[in-house]
Amino acid sequence: MNKLEEIAYKNYSRVNDFPVVVQKFGGSSVADVERIMNVAEKIRHRVNQGNRLVVVVSAMGKTTDNLIKLAKQVMDQPDARELDQLMATGEQVSSALLSMALQSLKVKSKSLNAFQAGIETVGKFSEGRIKCFDKKRLLSLLKINEVLVIAGFQGIMNGYELTTLGRGGSDTSAVALAAALNAPCEIYSDVAGIYTTDPKLYPAAKKAKMISYDDMLELAGSGAKVLHGRSVEVAKRFNIPIYCGSSFSDEEGSYVVNEDLIIEKNTVTGLSVMNNQLRFVIKKLPTDYSLVRGIFQTAAVAGLNVDMISIIQDDDGITISFTVIDEKKKRAESAVKKALKELADYELECHSGYVKVSVVGVGMKSGVGVASDFFNALKNIPFKLVTTSEIKISCLIENEFKAAAVAALVKKFKL
Amino acid sequence: MNKLEEIAYKNYSRVNDFPVVVQKFGGSSVADVERIMNVAEKIRHRVNQGNRLVVVVSAMGKTTDNLIKLAKQVMDQPDARELDQLMATGEQVSSALLSMALQSLKVKSKSLNAFQAGIETVGKFSEGRIKCFDKKRLLSLLKINEVLVIAGFQGIMNGYELTTLGRGGSDTSAVALAAALNAPCEIYSDVAGIYTTDPKLYPAAKKAKMISYDDMLELAGSGAKVLHGRSVEVAKRFNIPIYCGSSFSDEEGSYVVNEDLIIEKNTVTGLSVMNNQLRFVIKKLPTDYSLVRGIFQTAAVAGLNVDMISIIQDDDGITISFTVIDEKKKRAESAVKKALKELADYELECHSGYVKVSVVGVGMKSGVGVASDFFNALKNIPFKLVTTSEIKISCLIENEFKAAAVAALVKKFKL
Repeated sequence: MNKLEEIAYKNYSRVNDFPVVVQKFGGSSVADVERIMNVAEKIRHRVNQGNRLVVVVSAMGKTTDNLIKLAKQVMDQPDARELDQLMATGEQVSSALLSMALQSLKVKSKSLNAFQAGIETVGKFSEGRIKCFDKKRLLSLLKINEVLVIAGFQGIMNGYELTTLGRGGSDTSAVALAAALNAPCEIYSDVAGIYTTDPKLYPAAKKAKMISYDDMLELAGSGAKVLHGRSVEVAKRFNIPIYCGSSFSDEEGSYVVNEDLIIEKNTVTGLSVMNNQLRFVIKKLPTDYSLVRGIFQTAAVAGLNVDMISIIQDDDGITISFTVIDEKKKRAESAVKKALKELADYELECHSGYVKVSVVGVGMKSGVGVASDFFNALKNIPFKLVTTSEIKISCLIENEFKAAAVAALVKKFKL
Repeated sequence: MNKLEEIAYKNYSRVNDFPVVVQKFGGSSVADVERIMNVAEKIRHRVNQGNRLVVVVSAMGKTTDNLIKLAKQVMDQPDARELDQLMATGEQVSSALLSMALQSLKVKSKSLNAFQAGIETVGKFSEGRIKCFDKKRLLSLLKINEVLVIAGFQGIMNGYELTTLGRGGSDTSAVALAAALNAPCEIYSDVAGIYTTDPKLYPAAKKAKMISYDDMLELAGSGAKVLHGRSVEVAKRFNIPIYCGSSFSDEEGSYVVNEDLIIEKNTVTGLSVMNNQLRFVIKKLPTDYSLVRGIFQTAAVAGLNVDMISIIQDDDGITISFTVIDEKKKRAESAVKKALKELADYELECHSGYVKVSVVGVGMKSGVGVASDFFNALKNIPFKLVTTSEIKISCLIENEFKAAAVAALVKKFKL
């Protein structure tokens, strides 16, 4: 156990005196039989170190995408319930194969799907939220097995309806299991840890050793793809440490933990970039707040994920600016027009080709001058929209300035 | 409704006053999206005629074989429990897709896996036997849906363990469901009905319009592949009529029904051929019946399906002859040798290259001279072993005489 693990893993559950750890392996980690064997080796190593493991797996490689394609051959807009029923098979396949792989290495293992693990969900098809597990069954099975392999991304609603948890939901399966069992959670993918900036964007990016839940939440919300945002929320609520590591190497990863555990606090701990932003500006709206409500209501009904919102009221009326993911341009435009259909006189601009660049850090709460440093770093790079939270500053800039902005901010905040 | 259907379908269940019918579609009938759409059309037609349908599906095409191959890449002898867990996904995929296809045709449909349909099984992994269904849930869902699509071949053991029912088990799923709901059962495959002789063997073979459970059982046991033997047993026990038809045409199929419903009874109604027979002869065994028991016990433990058994005792001792499926020659030989390892002095012959040819018919029970006709038909074709039941005569002949024997028997019994 290394120093960081020791700090993060204090006071968690044991079964038969073996510390319990929840691990999650993503789709690329179990993409073929060879990789499944590699994951099984990794797990065996951990079992031999004296742990009992609950392992959550995603579907193999592109399985989920392929199942969706198959469904779309049958009908354009497949029923969400039947689509869930179809997609959930992917994780059942990978969990059974991983369990076989473990058995071939003489590790006592059993795979469980959502029915078997008693994963109860609430909500809607394709976006279930986990309520609870059959903890009693899991613990009693963990007494007689060294590893339980759980099909991620799925749960049971109303006693018998299979639901999926939405994209990236296996992360949430893992963290929720860790919360239920009071165990630490390790998430393995093809990236060894959390980078304060995406290494693809900025090759000299540094890896965080420890990062707080709040910083991670802001990073995830701003486009960092290592961890699903919802899983971080659950981890924060139940104070479950998450370790993000690589499935393919032994390189040290990153811990996502409670703020208290982080000794050295940087003001700014991360930078993230979200591509394909669509920018709306609606000008000269009469000062009637029901119009504002109307715009965001129709956007919600149309399933649009409205992000950066800025609203200014002056003598000319109200000016609203906000962003939406670019690929939904048509839908977004018609939603806005629908909301304003009673109005004859307003100005609407809708442009694509933007990226959102954000810097994040819990240290901002107490640090001063971050905004000043931020704008200083950007110098003459033109930004169209700025929004802030307590621990984040985001700005919207044109695609062509992305690289320059990232380089300037990384340099300024020593990321 | 045609005449035969009317006779066969008297007095079965209704839901909301709609007659309930159970249908089953095999793997080749749902092998791709086009075929699934074709099956959905067939089902819609039936719904429009005023039926409520419970449809059982097998996995698409070669899915089950491919899953087994995948498992064998992970380990040579995969654990039966994990293999069941893996294989059961195939039927969940096809049932969800068929349900989507029905919805695309505006048919109200819902797919259900073994957990959802409450299919309880007993027995062992990979060879579960159905005990019951959640009939209450099925009936209440059938009130608000026109079709329920059930994943065949699977059940739940001990409350949460997924089991499969063994090869061909989807037939049993369908007939057991029909028994539970007191509904007739229709089994669709790529063969339109039951032929008294395999048309591949004898192109002029005739199709039976109606055949009794017992004749069908003997035919299934003798190698006819249209229906899984176990499903016929269940149908017989609960007096469930089975219709065997084609998924691909509207050609009239065959009904498997209670003997009473069959008006014209032929003495011999069918002929079947089973290839790849291995023939054993053990001679000069001392008259010690524990040796006989020993042979069949070790054969059973070795998983050998011993078929035709003939035992004769005379002054030289005991002569035993029996057949086993050829592909297990090594295993069969070593099992026999193991059973007789205490004996120094006996003669063992083991030859492959045989086929078993059988004629079947409930009419034999009352008819006379069938054996005489049988041997007359075979003329000079040499047979190595003959066994009989009340309604069947089987003989073992060398491969090279197969075609001649089939032709002679078909001609003699006007099949």
